[in-house]
Amino acid sequence: MIVDCALYRAGARIERPQDLSEALDAARARGDTFLWLGLYQPTPEELDLVARELKLHPLAVEDAIKAHQRPKLEQYEDSLFCVVKTLLYRKENTQLETGEVALFLGDGFAVTVRHGEANPLHDVRLRMEQQERDVLRHGPASVLYAVCDAIVDTYGEIVAEIEQDLEELEAAVFAPHRKNQAERIYLLKREVLEFRRAAVPLLSPMRQLAEGHVPGVAKGTRPFFRDVNDHLQRVVEAVESFDRLLGDILSANLAQVSVRQNDDLRKISAWVAIIAVPTMVAGIYGMNFEHMPELKLQYGYPLVLLLMLTVCAALYRWFKRSGWL
Amino acid sequence: MIVDCALYRAGARIERPQDLSEALDAARARGDTFLWLGLYQPTPEELDLVARELKLHPLAVEDAIKAHQRPKLEQYEDSLFCVVKTLLYRKENTQLETGEVALFLGDGFAVTVRHGEANPLHDVRLRMEQQERDVLRHGPASVLYAVCDAIVDTYGEIVAEIEQDLEELEAAVFAPHRKNQAERIYLLKREVLEFRRAAVPLLSPMRQLAEGHVPGVAKGTRPFFRDVNDHLQRVVEAVESFDRLLGDILSANLAQVSVRQNDDLRKISAWVAIIAVPTMVAGIYGMNFEHMPELKLQYGYPLVLLLMLTVCAALYRWFKRSGWL
Amino acid sequence: MIVDCALYRAGARIERPQDLSEALDAARARGDTFLWLGLYQPTPEELDLVARELKLHPLAVEDAIKAHQRPKLEQYEDSLFCVVKTLLYRKENTQLETGEVALFLGDGFAVTVRHGEANPLHDVRLRMEQQERDVLRHGPASVLYAVCDAIVDTYGEIVAEIEQDLEELEAAVFAPHRKNQAERIYLLKREVLEFRRAAVPLLSPMRQLAEGHVPGVAKGTRPFFRDVNDHLQRVVEAVESFDRLLGDILSANLAQVSVRQNDDLRKISAWVAIIAVPTMVAGIYGMNFEHMPELKLQYGYPLVLLLMLTVCAALYRWFKRSGWL
Amino acid sequence: MIVDCALYRAGARIERPQDLSEALDAARARGDTFLWLGLYQPTPEELDLVARELKLHPLAVEDAIKAHQRPKLEQYEDSLFCVVKTLLYRKENTQLETGEVALFLGDGFAVTVRHGEANPLHDVRLRMEQQERDVLRHGPASVLYAVCDAIVDTYGEIVAEIEQDLEELEAAVFAPHRKNQAERIYLLKREVLEFRRAAVPLLSPMRQLAEGHVPGVAKGTRPFFRDVNDHLQRVVEAVESFDRLLGDILSANLAQVSVRQNDDLRKISAWVAIIAVPTMVAGIYGMNFEHMPELKLQYGYPLVLLLMLTVCAALYRWFKRSGWL
Amino acid sequence: MIVDCALYRAGARIERPQDLSEALDAARARGDTFLWLGLYQPTPEELDLVARELKLHPLAVEDAIKAHQRPKLEQYEDSLFCVVKTLLYRKENTQLETGEVALFLGDGFAVTVRHGEANPLHDVRLRMEQQERDVLRHGPASVLYAVCDAIVDTYGEIVAEIEQDLEELEAAVFAPHRKNQAERIYLLKREVLEFRRAAVPLLSPMRQLAEGHVPGVAKGTRPFFRDVNDHLQRVVEAVESFDRLLGDILSANLAQVSVRQNDDLRKISAWVAIIAVPTMVAGIYGMNFEHMPELKLQYGYPLVLLLMLTVCAALYRWFKRSGWL
Repeated sequence: MIVDCALYRAGARIERPQDLSEALDAARARGDTFLWLGLYQPTPEELDLVARELKLHPLAVEDAIKAHQRPKLEQYEDSLFCVVKTLLYRKENTQLETGEVALFLGDGFAVTVRHGEANPLHDVRLRMEQQERDVLRHGPASVLYAVCDAIVDTYGEIVAEIEQDLEELEAAVFAPHRKNQAERIYLLKREVLEFRRAAVPLLSPMRQLAEGHVPGVAKGTRPFFRDVNDHLQRVVEAVESFDRLLGDILSANLAQVSVRQNDDLRKISAWVAIIAVPTMVAGIYGMNFEHMPELKLQYGYPLVLLLMLTVCAALYRWFKRSGWL
Repeated sequence: MIVDCALYRAGARIERPQDLSEALDAARARGDTFLWLGLYQPTPEELDLVARELKLHPLAVEDAIKAHQRPKLEQYEDSLFCVVKTLLYRKENTQLETGEVALFLGDGFAVTVRHGEANPLHDVRLRMEQQERDVLRHGPASVLYAVCDAIVDTYGEIVAEIEQDLEELEAAVFAPHRKNQAERIYLLKREVLEFRRAAVPLLSPMRQLAEGHVPGVAKGTRPFFRDVNDHLQRVVEAVESFDRLLGDILSANLAQVSVRQNDDLRKISAWVAIIAVPTMVAGIYGMNFEHMPELKLQYGYPLVLLLMLTVCAALYRWFKRSGWL
Repeated sequence: MIVDCALYRAGARIERPQDLSEALDAARARGDTFLWLGLYQPTPEELDLVARELKLHPLAVEDAIKAHQRPKLEQYEDSLFCVVKTLLYRKENTQLETGEVALFLGDGFAVTVRHGEANPLHDVRLRMEQQERDVLRHGPASVLYAVCDAIVDTYGEIVAEIEQDLEELEAAVFAPHRKNQAERIYLLKREVLEFRRAAVPLLSPMRQLAEGHVPGVAKGTRPFFRDVNDHLQRVVEAVESFDRLLGDILSANLAQVSVRQNDDLRKISAWVAIIAVPTMVAGIYGMNFEHMPELKLQYGYPLVLLLMLTVCAALYRWFKRSGWL
Repeated sequence: MIVDCALYRAGARIERPQDLSEALDAARARGDTFLWLGLYQPTPEELDLVARELKLHPLAVEDAIKAHQRPKLEQYEDSLFCVVKTLLYRKENTQLETGEVALFLGDGFAVTVRHGEANPLHDVRLRMEQQERDVLRHGPASVLYAVCDAIVDTYGEIVAEIEQDLEELEAAVFAPHRKNQAERIYLLKREVLEFRRAAVPLLSPMRQLAEGHVPGVAKGTRPFFRDVNDHLQRVVEAVESFDRLLGDILSANLAQVSVRQNDDLRKISAWVAIIAVPTMVAGIYGMNFEHMPELKLQYGYPLVLLLMLTVCAALYRWFKRSGWL
Repeated sequence: MIVDCALYRAGARIERPQDLSEALDAARARGDTFLWLGLYQPTPEELDLVARELKLHPLAVEDAIKAHQRPKLEQYEDSLFCVVKTLLYRKENTQLETGEVALFLGDGFAVTVRHGEANPLHDVRLRMEQQERDVLRHGPASVLYAVCDAIVDTYGEIVAEIEQDLEELEAAVFAPHRKNQAERIYLLKREVLEFRRAAVPLLSPMRQLAEGHVPGVAKGTRPFFRDVNDHLQRVVEAVESFDRLLGDILSANLAQVSVRQNDDLRKISAWVAIIAVPTMVAGIYGMNFEHMPELKLQYGYPLVLLLMLTVCAALYRWFKRSGWL
């Protein structure tokens, strides 16, 4: 589906072209103009049409149709192909949904192909048109910047959400009335690894862009990509430290849970031990010996009851002091 | 065993040659023609025959006869030798069977030597002949591409199967009526390490091919190898994250199992503690003191039974609230 | 908020300029003079004013307003931008507070922008003016050195404090009357990871400065930056070893706690076992058989009591020797 | 002790020289001849004699006398010094014995100095003389190849033996009547680390030889060293994966053992709980109340016995269904 | 404190100079002479005096006064500054004490500054003067070699001692009457990390020296530094493997201890279960039913006692076979 298509000249949107091929020729003739074509989950036919007009490389086009690529930046003879993973964090079930945006940059054009629900690019386009016209002047590479910037920003938001989840987990693990959090910890860790697989392979392309080593990307955009690279590095460092913390919290959870459970078991056993003592005393005075002088005492019964109570109280106090109760 | 042998000219299969040596001379004379010879677990004699005709290096030939090589790409003076591990995943017993394909590429010829059951190359040849003639035009290197592509594709399928196994394992570990899954987790981890040993050493040869640094491989095949390299990298990233997840799930499993077992033990102990109380009371009224006024009461017995029941009920409620039952 | 602003010539403070722009022109004209402007959590307007006078790059200015950057060193055409994290360790709640200092260095000026409570730069300025005039002679880069040196020194102090915390933790974990320290260990580990994220990314900029590879930084300052780099490396090595030790102590804590708890449980169970024996004996002599000769013995009762005592004493001694009590 | 000493010309053994110095001069004069001297745990005096004749570097000689060097390849002005660790695996007590072979290669001579029981070099020499004369043609470097090849082959055999040990361990850990295998696992892991320390440092010298970067080693031997390098890499990969698997199996063993033990404890506790119920019932009917109508029933006693049996059977069934028995 | 000061010419000690400055001039004039000055924990004043005479760099001097530097090798314009950590292992309390030696090397002089108790350099000097005159000929760099060699030798001795400690630990962990060794393991691991921090940063300077890349160090000393580098690498490999083994033994210890404790608990519980059975039987025959025919049997009592014994014996045998006792 073609979402939007427009020509940009010197940072300003000028028109929605009728014919792709003519528009491209016009853009190329002037030099300060480029075409930005936005597609959303296009059918192979739709993309083929565009690819033929813009002479995109067939392997890149194939990658743009099939989602599930890894993040990458590839240079073809006369164009650049870039894949970035988009992420959507569903907090209610600790689920990270991945989509992706594929970009083609070439002489006078930028094509964005989006898969999945995350990161609608319409907002990105609007923000560029309205607030960042200076950036748009840098040509097609500014589209690459805008898209990467928007996606890495959502990475940053997900980092914040996971940070919050992690804090909740910590509170739950160390709460006095704690439950076994192993499942929640594991699920979060799995999503963090998923996050890692989306973010880490993007580091190398982004560094290349930030260092200005990519032909076809205007030198003037370097500081912008450096900015994105910076954010991405912060994201990756955060993800790495989540990974390590979740490993540690899994150990801490095991310690907490087993401590709690042993506490319970110890307390129950201690009560059983306390009750065993009067039971034994009662057993003794239940014996049928003919000569048991205590049995004939007027106050034998209440005295024995008192004895039982005293022993139980003493045991209780002792166990309390030993930390067994 | 010679499986198939054919001459290819400009992407099309032209004939099955009678004589290897003549066919090779003819192929070399024309330049746009090459010979593709496919062997399956050849005897040393069969391979020696071929090696003498094509002047293959003896050490490479030895490696192609003995299976159990590690994946590698070696350059000899006038030929290229490549070993790739093939994998077959038997889900029913979580077993990964490895085989291997050895390839010789030289001026005007490509020889494939397959060991093990996985990845029959006949299908690869058919697909090339029918669907990918454009690729076949690139000469012997296209055979290397076709084989690597097919094998790395099966890697991708195994990744998907292991992913499914892992999800089943997760469900089993966190199920309410769980059993100890340590053995299943360990076995899967062992196979993942086996997978790793097949896939990781292939990264370096594939990157060399993708970057076009290998003499004797036509430059035009670079984008194809880049594609395979890309898939291989995704496979390796998936395998690495399986490795880490399996480590975590082993910990989570231990937590789950020990929690479950302690739950059971605590419940049993709590029941023992509840029963101990009426036993003690019964013991008390079983004592043989002469002066025990309660024993003479008309309703002493039912009252004591009621007392026992009340105490047990109170204990039950208390234990329930404490989370001990 | 502008904290301080002064011109320095040949290592000595000469005046507080009225007008930034004039002062800068004067400084540039002489060559051995530079302006040091210190800001504390400036409003965007304040910083914009300064940025316009000194022609700072807008992206760098944006980074200096928003805190939460990662440590970095960026070269713009005619200026240098550096971000360093400041740390403040609150021992009472094992909390590491992070702030940051952003620095702009250019021809004839140095601007420091501080966020957060840690590391007031006023003291740094005073110390430079009073004790390190020789360093101040090296121009704006000496300000970068002074700030980095002061911040890395506080890193070193925090390392010492964490070392002390770690020793307390060790003492607590291995104390005879120990409690579960998992929470304290985990919290300390989290802060160590936070520390890591502040210190490790600074390694690369500091090495660049120490090796003299940064244009606009006088060669004469190299030994000073080498000194800071050295301290930073020691800090990072210490942090890495804290990280590893905390992982080990988490395991050791689990071992200690579970050993302690099992000790308790075993002792309680042993007491229950001891008491069960006289209870059984009492039960036997409570049986109502008509022919039980012992019951008629004159000293049957005291003999049985003696038997019970003897058996209990023997069991106690046996359990003691087995290490069960 | 001098084990053997011979001159080789064009791949064939020609004579056992009487005088080392003369033989060496003769060998150097012809060019296609070299001397191979084999020593076994020589005394310092023996080695000094040889060293003086062949002008070996004193530091290398010292290293060759003292065993316990790390694997290395050192270039002296006119000679090459190489140390390789030999390994002998004693399966009966999971013990890895290390020895070492030191080699001196120079113009017209090769000296091998063996320490320890493993890898007698006499067989290596015989195999070279009988089967690999083509290799021997390459001069002294062929001795280095032959020794490294033989030693790395024993590495491969030890890998196979450890693989078998590991499978036995896995079977033992996951067997139904399992015992704690922690000690066996740990001991095997220690030997694997020992193996690692012998094999990993050899990687770098072997790669240098395989890439032909070592002066004094004939280019023609490159494919041979590439072969050894290949085997060594497979050994190292296997060792690394043993290391990881042993870590995992240590965790799995802990899980298995603690599960087994908790099973036992739970079953015993469940039986105690079952027995506690008829004991309580008996206690109730052992009370001495005057008015207990059941006591006077004709069939009270058998009815109560029946009640006890029924309750026990019901509990047994319930516990069985709960998985407690 | 100045420990010793002497001039060396062509490997021989010639005199103890009265005046530092004159001696240095004399040494420089001849070329084959150098001054070796040894200091032990000098006061700042003492070192300043020396520094002024020899024109040492103030930052290096500051580092030499304050101990607690990390190992490093720094090149100043006309001198070399090196810091090496010395270690002293106190086996009785598993404590590693660190000191350090700082060295200044320049044209015609070598200054050693020692802190801490370990590695007195007097012995090093004596050994050089008496046994290694050939090495001393190489000028000031020979002092650097001698000091590094002596220190790395003590590293090697500590490796041997830790190896022995580790073996004792292993024996203790796997002994039949084992105690919890977590504390000892942890303490040893902490010292191993301390060792690591002393040894690992020395690798890079030592490799530079071994490769002859350091100006001011005579080429002829390369083999000597290569020897030290070799020993250092062996030390570091040993330390790394201690680190890993200690992690594994911590896990093994947890397994051993928890197995032992569960064994005890299971045995106690089994005894309780056995005793519960005769108690129940006694309870039954203690019931007060009017019609209990067994009670009137002549041999009822001994028969019941026999029954109890038989049941207990049967249970004992069963538990023994199940491995519960």
